[in-house]
Amino acid sequence: MDINQRLREMGIELPIPMAPVGNYAPVVVAGDLVFVSGAGPVRADGSLVTGKVGDGGLGLEAAREAARLCGLQILAVLRAELGDLDQVGRVVKLFGMVNCLPGFNRTPAVIDGCSELLVKVFDDAGRGARSAVGMAELPFDIAVEIEAVVQVSKH
Amino acid sequence: MDINQRLREMGIELPIPMAPVGNYAPVVVAGDLVFVSGAGPVRADGSLVTGKVGDGGLGLEAAREAARLCGLQILAVLRAELGDLDQVGRVVKLFGMVNCLPGFNRTPAVIDGCSELLVKVFDDAGRGARSAVGMAELPFDIAVEIEAVVQVSKH
Amino acid sequence: MDINQRLREMGIELPIPMAPVGNYAPVVVAGDLVFVSGAGPVRADGSLVTGKVGDGGLGLEAAREAARLCGLQILAVLRAELGDLDQVGRVVKLFGMVNCLPGFNRTPAVIDGCSELLVKVFDDAGRGARSAVGMAELPFDIAVEIEAVVQVSKH
Repeated sequence: MDINQRLREMGIELPIPMAPVGNYAPVVVAGDLVFVSGAGPVRADGSLVTGKVGDGGLGLEAAREAARLCGLQILAVLRAELGDLDQVGRVVKLFGMVNCLPGFNRTPAVIDGCSELLVKVFDDAGRGARSAVGMAELPFDIAVEIEAVVQVSKH
Repeated sequence: MDINQRLREMGIELPIPMAPVGNYAPVVVAGDLVFVSGAGPVRADGSLVTGKVGDGGLGLEAAREAARLCGLQILAVLRAELGDLDQVGRVVKLFGMVNCLPGFNRTPAVIDGCSELLVKVFDDAGRGARSAVGMAELPFDIAVEIEAVVQVSKH
Repeated sequence: MDINQRLREMGIELPIPMAPVGNYAPVVVAGDLVFVSGAGPVRADGSLVTGKVGDGGLGLEAAREAARLCGLQILAVLRAELGDLDQVGRVVKLFGMVNCLPGFNRTPAVIDGCSELLVKVFDDAGRGARSAVGMAELPFDIAVEIEAVVQVSKH
């Protein structure tokens, strides 16, 4: 599969990878595993989707879109690191974190916004193991943050 | 060691693995590491142990039992994926998440309910690295969720 | 680089590794990856830095120092496991957890207290991937807990 062509067909232009907001690396490669730092929901204009999710806050659809934006960031940092998304053999694992208002626990439905993107892009290889949980706080009050482990393909 | 025989001696019948509640895989194998999605506390009748843990909510013993049920789910999904639990070389890591009421921080004692099961089943190879922490929310208000990384054995 | 000499030059004496507070291992080695259990902020006298971080609680500088103490614990358990910190090839990933009061979300600045230590000790090899997030509760009400994955060096 040619991922660049697929992204074009999906009308997706990857964002600029957000610079780390501390003393860490966006991505570290260890053997054939690639560890991606927690990615936030960066809009095309560079702004962040902030706010807690649940009654009186961000709604489910807005939160799902935030998760999709996290997925685009993950793809963007992977492309910047690996040079080409065709190097991604499969998504191994996501750790999806939702900035929850008390009582909001539909966290899997939120993180599906990222998972569905990755499955569209990589087919079954985009469906990793996953947890999708509710956090007390996330950096800068972002609505969603998602960490990933991917495996590079064996050429 | 024959894990199936040991489970029979312990009187343990593994539950049916719970189907993923979103667009993810229960387990992904990457090299000799196996990444298990966050597992919830599924009772033998298929119902989930829900509710927050702490004063006015679920007590410590009920939470420990919930963690043990998460451990049974982890074993069940591993058996479904690997075909046989004798393929498990060792437990590498658990990430144990407790759905905490404010002020409840005996999270290691809760997650021990899972760890003790795994050590009984796999002996010292069942004792992985671990964190045991308190979450703001968990999916469907489950009381405990536990993620695992295991290493397959070298035959 | 000789890490022991560097630690001496930095005036750093590593603490005694804190014993596990449950049925888990401080460190598990799987291939060339080393998984370090969530480490807490242990002072030189063996006491723990406790309390939530944010307005009315622990301040940013105290929380950063707590994160640095978690980093020292990580180094101490790695040395105990590997025999020598020169075995560490690189820090692959940190998962930094801050015990947050509602509204405190400067979690990256807190976890930098650990990251800056690791970068001083290992240079660029100490800068891993990272998430830095806010938890509802941490064991024994510790202020910060940090998990690590490191890669051993190829000799």
